[in-house]
Amino acid sequence: MYAVNTAQLFEAREAVQRATPLVQCLTNVVVPQVTANVLLAIDATPAMVDGPHEAAQFAAVASAVLINVGTPTGEQSEAMRLAARAAHEEGTPWVLDPVAVGGLEFRTQLAKDLLQYRPSAIRGNASEIVALAGLGAGGRGVDATDSVDAAREAAIALSRSTGAVVAISGEQDLVVYAEGDEVGEVRVTSGHVLMQKVIGTGCALGAAVAAYLGAADQGAAARITAVAAAHAHLSAAGSMAGATTSGPGSFAVAWLDALASVERSDLEQWVQLNGSVDRANGQP
Amino acid sequence: MYAVNTAQLFEAREAVQRATPLVQCLTNVVVPQVTANVLLAIDATPAMVDGPHEAAQFAAVASAVLINVGTPTGEQSEAMRLAARAAHEEGTPWVLDPVAVGGLEFRTQLAKDLLQYRPSAIRGNASEIVALAGLGAGGRGVDATDSVDAAREAAIALSRSTGAVVAISGEQDLVVYAEGDEVGEVRVTSGHVLMQKVIGTGCALGAAVAAYLGAADQGAAARITAVAAAHAHLSAAGSMAGATTSGPGSFAVAWLDALASVERSDLEQWVQLNGSVDRANGQP
Amino acid sequence: MYAVNTAQLFEAREAVQRATPLVQCLTNVVVPQVTANVLLAIDATPAMVDGPHEAAQFAAVASAVLINVGTPTGEQSEAMRLAARAAHEEGTPWVLDPVAVGGLEFRTQLAKDLLQYRPSAIRGNASEIVALAGLGAGGRGVDATDSVDAAREAAIALSRSTGAVVAISGEQDLVVYAEGDEVGEVRVTSGHVLMQKVIGTGCALGAAVAAYLGAADQGAAARITAVAAAHAHLSAAGSMAGATTSGPGSFAVAWLDALASVERSDLEQWVQLNGSVDRANGQP
Repeated sequence: MYAVNTAQLFEAREAVQRATPLVQCLTNVVVPQVTANVLLAIDATPAMVDGPHEAAQFAAVASAVLINVGTPTGEQSEAMRLAARAAHEEGTPWVLDPVAVGGLEFRTQLAKDLLQYRPSAIRGNASEIVALAGLGAGGRGVDATDSVDAAREAAIALSRSTGAVVAISGEQDLVVYAEGDEVGEVRVTSGHVLMQKVIGTGCALGAAVAAYLGAADQGAAARITAVAAAHAHLSAAGSMAGATTSGPGSFAVAWLDALASVERSDLEQWVQLNGSVDRANGQP
Repeated sequence: MYAVNTAQLFEAREAVQRATPLVQCLTNVVVPQVTANVLLAIDATPAMVDGPHEAAQFAAVASAVLINVGTPTGEQSEAMRLAARAAHEEGTPWVLDPVAVGGLEFRTQLAKDLLQYRPSAIRGNASEIVALAGLGAGGRGVDATDSVDAAREAAIALSRSTGAVVAISGEQDLVVYAEGDEVGEVRVTSGHVLMQKVIGTGCALGAAVAAYLGAADQGAAARITAVAAAHAHLSAAGSMAGATTSGPGSFAVAWLDALASVERSDLEQWVQLNGSVDRANGQP
Repeated sequence: MYAVNTAQLFEAREAVQRATPLVQCLTNVVVPQVTANVLLAIDATPAMVDGPHEAAQFAAVASAVLINVGTPTGEQSEAMRLAARAAHEEGTPWVLDPVAVGGLEFRTQLAKDLLQYRPSAIRGNASEIVALAGLGAGGRGVDATDSVDAAREAAIALSRSTGAVVAISGEQDLVVYAEGDEVGEVRVTSGHVLMQKVIGTGCALGAAVAAYLGAADQGAAARITAVAAAHAHLSAAGSMAGATTSGPGSFAVAWLDALASVERSDLEQWVQLNGSVDRANGQP
């Protein structure tokens, strides 16, 4: 059911190119520029409409919405609630990126409140996923202090309780979806260590997940493919950029170039996929 | 009266180099960095003073002010009103960039309110200009869904009612100024398709227009030359960058380099100008 | 006591590599991305936690805090007061960057209020240091209109009254510390003129100072070494980048690459140091 192959990932990428989805981003103050540039590079259209007077109106017409709680102001927090509710009510897919949730009470409460609006996908590092699931203390900033596999059970629980596809970023990304007793997962192995030395590669991934969801059907199988494809796209571009650069400045430039040029053969060369479906309550 | 040639455009560019105008930017959260880097590259001095406690004080001493309504918060909206009023009262030239006006009510009302302070120039895409003139529904985000020529009448009406030079960005940029029955226009053809794949090229153009106005006389002829020259400068640099790069990351880097190095010969090579003055009510 | 040599500067750099200090930044809207990328390049961990609900909580656990008053909103100003107080109470080193203090009343009062929480270091240009010391009118935006040497007495007075190491950025950076009758100073000569054409090199320096302090002992000698080392690191990387690039776009990329690769031999090649200790009331 959730088996994913490279051909499907590239079909998802082509769907983004055809749809040029309009992605509304309510994100933190550090990454709007790189997020917008990543969205443009993958043929999506960014729109950072994040004020309380406009967020709901726009969420009703956007192709998808990203909510990243990295630096929530009072106004933006209110806008996030309004945008998530409008997206939920209007059927706009939306993504929650729970940056640094767990360690900081204000955003932890905010992110947990937003779950009532049933995100289509949740993307974070292992510590953030564990904390959002209510099972741990969270990371320090955007660091992952838990490993991807240590967060697998939390991701399954979070998916089951919210209906979201849940993606854990790490050396190997893990994308899970659980419904009742059935658990599907896809592991995406790609990328480059320099992605950790450029700010916003993770936050932009959240936006790319939104773009892919904005160009996809909203059934579980299509959503898990879209989420995995966004991860494969950005990490393959990371591998490509890392093959030709050695410093964070030139890597960031090459990564944007690679994002815009990724072909099916690049996914085949740079991305390793593992998927499975387990119908016995998520035990592998 | 409004005929403009390349020599005049380059004289306007040299005026910016001599004056190093201090450009106060009240702009959206996505583009402050690229806007500041563009201003530095063209020898202006950026200052993002956009809080309500400081905006008016600074607008009185700045060389020019940019107001871009791309992500207006409550505080920033108030600061925009105060800055525009102070600029108007103190004779500081100011530019309005009506990002996504039309589709979103809050910013549409804000932008229309700001017109009372008589901007020196207004820069937007065709849909935004049509919407600001009260003649259409506006674009989705920063996309242009109307063509430049379809917005020409709206631009003329907007110029006539506000006294602003109005610039419509597109494949061919159109700069118009109308006073009574007389309509002057300059068309600037230059640039590269990759400018659409880098966030902030349009928003930074609004800031560059402010810089050029900050180094120019404020009569209509000098203003239309300054606005056209800013367009020519940034789009010529786009052509230059596009000639040597093929991806959005490397293009953005080369564009900043080219902005700082544009010479008169580059304008002659890369920019095509068409101008006209019509004294019969703006009909061509 | 405050004599500093290149070996000590590089030891301070290695301390940052070992500690990967978590640097909380409350900074202006223009520079979060470049600031975060600089921190990552020098092996620190950025976290832009700048809301009033979270700033104090985070300042208690961060390795160091940067407060840059470049674009203070109401909420962020409140967060700055809370973060500075928490840093002071919890013993977290913190850095004040008084951007454009002097010319603008709101931020001038804010910066002066923050001095009660005794910053570990203050970094600014000559005009800002003079204004913060209460001895002049300040600069226009981030320009220095006073020379470094003209601000030396102000820096000494400011250090003596606050206990901070005070750094004045200029062609030659001046780092001073004064306690009672004793005044120590280090002059760091390095860098490249293109650093002035890339936004955020100064603001990122403030963050780098925080990173270095977060990895150092908090005694005066260790602090002055850490502050000087941060200046040497960033300006040496500027010299290295300037040696291979000629435009601001490619310079900015090369600077980030160089920041990540600086070795002891690079400091020896590109940085000139002068230090002195005067025990007679700061007169050289």
